[in-house]
Amino acid sequence: MPTIYLAGPEVFLPDARDVMSEKRRLARSFGFEPTGPGSDENQAPVARLTADAIYRRNEDAMRRADVCLANITPFRGISADPGTVYEIGFMIALGKKVWAYTNHPDDYGSRVRSIWYGGLEIDESSGRPRGPDGMAIENHGKADNLMIDLGIEAIGGRVVRALALPADPARELAIFAEALRQLANKEGLQ
Amino acid sequence: MPTIYLAGPEVFLPDARDVMSEKRRLARSFGFEPTGPGSDENQAPVARLTADAIYRRNEDAMRRADVCLANITPFRGISADPGTVYEIGFMIALGKKVWAYTNHPDDYGSRVRSIWYGGLEIDESSGRPRGPDGMAIENHGKADNLMIDLGIEAIGGRVVRALALPADPARELAIFAEALRQLANKEGLQ
Repeated sequence: MPTIYLAGPEVFLPDARDVMSEKRRLARSFGFEPTGPGSDENQAPVARLTADAIYRRNEDAMRRADVCLANITPFRGISADPGTVYEIGFMIALGKKVWAYTNHPDDYGSRVRSIWYGGLEIDESSGRPRGPDGMAIENHGKADNLMIDLGIEAIGGRVVRALALPADPARELAIFAEALRQLANKEGLQ
Repeated sequence: MPTIYLAGPEVFLPDARDVMSEKRRLARSFGFEPTGPGSDENQAPVARLTADAIYRRNEDAMRRADVCLANITPFRGISADPGTVYEIGFMIALGKKVWAYTNHPDDYGSRVRSIWYGGLEIDESSGRPRGPDGMAIENHGKADNLMIDLGIEAIGGRVVRALALPADPARELAIFAEALRQLANKEGLQ
């Protein structure tokens, strides 16, 4: 059974235990065995661990995993949780299979326009759009910064994106389950 | 001469060419040879490259580098540029030496409180502070999400932080130069 690292910011949720437990249950139902974070139901609560212990536990779980499925739904801003992004880069460099999903349907450039610049005028006169502060806006239609999407695509992974924003993007698991289904198919598990 | 990958979001600046040129000049003055991004003065402008070409150029530059010095100054929000975070994780997993610097003096938990929650009341009653939406706030005193700081520290790197916010955090290079100086000392270049 392939091992899977379920990267994502769920650990910050007030109901982290329940949401992460449901993610592990779904992963197992598609034929994967979760390695972390939070894959061990009996582990010490994060609040009791030092930053160093959390890092080492996560790195160990990444190294033990065959596959990563990362939640890159925007977290406290326009982009994915930075801890999750670190893990995507780390696991791609290790040669693992890395996929991602997001509950936000808009691409990164759209979110920079709508959320960061809040509807301010964007200079579209050159080949590279710029905000009113002159900063360039990535315009590649990707789910997040192109290093994330292209890193995943370069190794044959997929970024599975929601078609519409769900009522509760931090907890919605429909796209997570769809990504698991596609990943299980590709891994020959179904 | 050790090769260095100067990760950071400077490519988005309106004066990207000048700022990146100055970063390369400083890196060379401390004994490093930059590999990218933007290490080649004669390269095609990013606006003319596909996302795939940009990714492959950056990955190639990362693999050619001995060392990474990443700018993790917050970019469009409370955390580092996600492309830079991807590159930190990627290069640590490749076994490269990775350092970072930030022009923001506050730790990540402080920025979540002041910038994301904008002074709203934080529940400090448990061992784990939570915002008014119930989401936990990392409280480890690190410059950014602990995966970034601890990943760097675990391999003997350093995160060099500004003592005060400069007037122009996107362009200020004093802490960059200080990080180069410390890194050059550790590498025996000076």
